[in-house]
Amino acid sequence: MDSENCSITENSSSHLERGQKVGKYNCPGLYEKLESSDHHVATCKNEWISYKRTCYFFSTTTKSWALAQRSCSEDAATLAVIDSEKDMTFLKRYSGELEHWIGLKNEANQTWKWANGKEFNSWFNLTGSGRCVSVNHKNVTAVDCEANFHWVCSKPSR
Amino acid sequence: MDSENCSITENSSSHLERGQKVGKYNCPGLYEKLESSDHHVATCKNEWISYKRTCYFFSTTTKSWALAQRSCSEDAATLAVIDSEKDMTFLKRYSGELEHWIGLKNEANQTWKWANGKEFNSWFNLTGSGRCVSVNHKNVTAVDCEANFHWVCSKPSR
Repeated sequence: MDSENCSITENSSSHLERGQKVGKYNCPGLYEKLESSDHHVATCKNEWISYKRTCYFFSTTTKSWALAQRSCSEDAATLAVIDSEKDMTFLKRYSGELEHWIGLKNEANQTWKWANGKEFNSWFNLTGSGRCVSVNHKNVTAVDCEANFHWVCSKPSR
Repeated sequence: MDSENCSITENSSSHLERGQKVGKYNCPGLYEKLESSDHHVATCKNEWISYKRTCYFFSTTTKSWALAQRSCSEDAATLAVIDSEKDMTFLKRYSGELEHWIGLKNEANQTWKWANGKEFNSWFNLTGSGRCVSVNHKNVTAVDCEANFHWVCSKPSR
């Protein structure tokens, strides 16, 4: 459906209710599913994977935690911030046997913080004695930040 | 951004070019990334994963090929149709060590066909002597259709 079939008039816009998107009125075929409660809409870069309103990028190369974080920031993302069990299950499963940096770090004399600045509330167990966190299909481990691992970036999908 | 900030007039709609969506003009904050060539937009059911304009569902239980295909059809999908190396790599990686049915089958005296009716053009090698195809992180194998495996559904994301 292109714009020629999606015109709107001032008259029709007066029917819009609070919170509705204009496009829904003009282009029902295009928009009808977008706002249903059992669907999510994701806008992600190509090669990224979307799951539960988040875009994820799994690297094909390895870097230290700091350089991996810099790579993510170049895509306006951070190393992965994970705030639910389902997201963690997804991320561990796709990581497979490869260690992947996520966005959780313990700066000297500080608490554990996510790459978005939020404090980690210890909703999962961390093993290991390092200051940077990596994930594989089995474990979440705090290791030496200078290790060269794969990494996962994340950002909200819209 | 809600509809109150996304109004359109007959005048403004006259600026629309062929192929542009109306919403892009009204709601730039909402739509600016949706049509960029390096992004994709996916509308998928919750719990589904989107990758390269396709929604995927990985089952948590096991069924025969036919019952798995029926489960997918209840979500207006099919067992996974895979038409690129990247899609196959994604699917194998997320499948991990578990065998997952995909939508490729050899009916008696027919050629191999995908669940969407298209003939399989042998772009990957099949091992095994069964009539239904399963995938894990290492192999793509033709096995007995009555085996109880996990499964992957797919459908275009929009």
